[in-house]
Order: sequence, then C-alpha cells, then structure tokens
Amino acid sequence: MVHTEYLWFTTKQRQEIVRITDEVAAIVERSGVRDGMALVSAMHITAGVYVNDWEGGLIRDIQDWLEKLAPSGLNYRHHQTGEDNADAHLKRTVVGHQVMLPITDGRLDLGPWEQVFYAEFDGQRRKRVVVKVMGES
Amino acid sequence: MVHTEYLWFTTKQRQEIVRITDEVAAIVERSGVRDGMALVSAMHITAGVYVNDWEGGLIRDIQDWLEKLAPSGLNYRHHQTGEDNADAHLKRTVVGHQVMLPITDGRLDLGPWEQVFYAEFDGQRRKRVVVKVMGES
Amino acid sequence: MVHTEYLWFTTKQRQEIVRITDEVAAIVERSGVRDGMALVSAMHITAGVYVNDWEGGLIRDIQDWLEKLAPSGLNYRHHQTGEDNADAHLKRTVVGHQVMLPITDGRLDLGPWEQVFYAEFDGQRRKRVVVKVMGES
Repeated sequence: MVHTEYLWFTTKQRQEIVRITDEVAAIVERSGVRDGMALVSAMHITAGVYVNDWEGGLIRDIQDWLEKLAPSGLNYRHHQTGEDNADAHLKRTVVGHQVMLPITDGRLDLGPWEQVFYAEFDGQRRKRVVVKVMGES
Repeated sequence: MVHTEYLWFTTKQRQEIVRITDEVAAIVERSGVRDGMALVSAMHITAGVYVNDWEGGLIRDIQDWLEKLAPSGLNYRHHQTGEDNADAHLKRTVVGHQVMLPITDGRLDLGPWEQVFYAEFDGQRRKRVVVKVMGES
Repeated sequence: MVHTEYLWFTTKQRQEIVRITDEVAAIVERSGVRDGMALVSAMHITAGVYVNDWEGGLIRDIQDWLEKLAPSGLNYRHHQTGEDNADAHLKRTVVGHQVMLPITDGRLDLGPWEQVFYAEFDGQRRKRVVVKVMGES
C-alpha cells in the first residue's frame, strides 16, 4: 500500500526553517497506512528535511552553525555559472535532504521531542517536498 | 509485512558510541522478512545512528572531529532555555540519526566493513531507537 | 514486491564523484515497481551516495569543502592501524552514504535538478553500491 502527496513552500526569507510535523502526520492519516514508513524528501537541491528540536533558540543555532560550516559569499566555482547559492547546496548536505519516519498504529512513531522540519536555504520561490507513505493498512 | 522493535540505551558516559549490528540483525531474524529493508532510527534528538568502521581509533577520531565541527561549551542560544546540550543536537546532525539497511535472503545485506552504531551525545539517561523491518517473508 | 541489484565502481582517481541517476533509473524500470521507493546505499565505508546538482563547478566545490571539513593527511588515530584513509570515513559521513528515492508511475520521482551521485573517497579498487527497490507493481 503506497500513498503519495506533495507539500509546497514559498518562504518569505531566503533561509527559513519550517516545522512540517503536522502536515506529514495528516498525510499519514489520509494514507490509511497503520504500520509502515513515510519518506519525506526535498525535491529541490538547495533545501533539506531534518528531524530535531522545536525550540527557536536551537533553530537559530543551527542556522548560525551552518553559516559557519558552509559560508555564503565565498568565491565558489558554482557561481561562475551565474548562480550565487553554492552555500545552499552545502548547507542542505549537512542537515540532510530526507527522513524516513516510522508509522505504528496508524500514527507517526516519533520520540517525545522529535519534530520534522523543512529547511530552506534558497527560498522566496515555489519549491516542493514529496511525502510517500508505504506499509500495511 | 512489517515488524517493529525498540532498543534502549542508558550510556555510562555522556558521549558514547555503541555497536548495534548484532541487535539489529537479531530483530531482522525475528521479523521473518527475507527481502526488504530495516529502518534504524534514534528517537531522541541528541543521539544518532550511523554506519561506519568498527575500529576503536576511528571511533575516537569521529568523536574528536565532531567536537571540532560542533563544539560543546559555546554560548548557544538553546542554552538560554536551561539546556546545555546544543552541541549534541548539532553532532547528531552531522552523523545522521537513521539508516535504512537492506535485507536479502533473510539477512542484513551489508558490505564487508559496514557496522551499525548508536551514537550518544547526551546520555546517562534512558533513550530509545526504533527498528522497523518491512518486506517479503 | 522487492528487486535488488548491485552497481560496481573502480574509480581511476582516489576521489571521484560519479553520476548514477541513469543506472538507478534502469534498475527501477527492470524492477517493475510502479509505486514505491528505491534504496541506493554504498556498501563500503569510505564512499557515499548523495543527491545534488549535476554541475561540474559545484561538484568541485563539494570536494574542496569536504577537504576543508575533513582534511586528509592529519595524524588520525585510525592511521595507527596502517590505514591512511580516516578522512575518507569522515567525508562520507558528511555527504551521507545512502538515499531513498521515491518511485511514482514507474519512474524515479525526482525534482527538476535532483541527480544521484556515487561519491568515492578512497577508490582505485572495486567497490559496490546496493540498489533495492520496493513497492507495488
């Protein structure tokens, strides 16, 4: 049994971290899958999907830390193509671009603090995440 | 066909890397799945799960390297909430918090040196990993 | 429905990034799966698999950036075993060693710029990637 939906995002800021746990949980419910897994995967290569804490301070810590590990504004080779977003490709590499979420008894089987986030690193345009649910009804 | 079990960890040290290949293999065997995949995913957001070498030197190299990439003891915003473990959230981001293991002929289909590890970055308390096996019997 | 194949690589350079989107798509087609997921996972612990841009400049940016985050030639503990590839173990940790690719209507359901890459960090010898496709026909 497989069920697929897409989430769309157009962030106001170039970089933005958006909690999507509830949207994914609603898709799992609509899927009718009681036991299985949900793949949540960014379809654009300057965005990521990750699981971590829903705490504003930590979210900003993550953004600052990514800027330190993969700075914007450097003289990347990628920018010779006219792009200016090489750092976004690298940042999404650090946080990851997809997660597999377990589903048990018809619900996301998450730990007490696990929340799912969409991480935009080059936004302000329409971008997509695929959610594919697979398992037994 | 879906089978789910949980592994529990209470590490002695705050940071500890624990090999769990055998525990996961035993769950795969109990599942009866002959061809499919096993999701192994940390349910706490200051721990990770990864696949790499079972060599003590490399394990310490990984720990030292994570400390360099995501140092403890900095003045993280997250710590304004009373927490002191922002670095653990970042370290787990680098190593990843989950893996999907292929199962072929009823066994984990791993390369010669692949071993599965639980990576604790804020331990000394009871924490959990979900193992969900899905496939054909 | 589960279908498994393996891809083999012997790179000319020690470090090399190889696009494998077409090879994976061909396996998906042979699998007969119309709706499901494909796991693409490096079976050696000094190689990775990732999804990002197929642009030569960015590929070199990624290699340079990995060298900065996880330098070769340092005095790693792992090298006391006679190995000299600790950096390869770390580099593969940053890019990740596996991806799950959604399959919809019998094809890889990828965004406009998503391409799948094999990332070799200690090559010049025969190494393997497992591709396992699971879903409905």
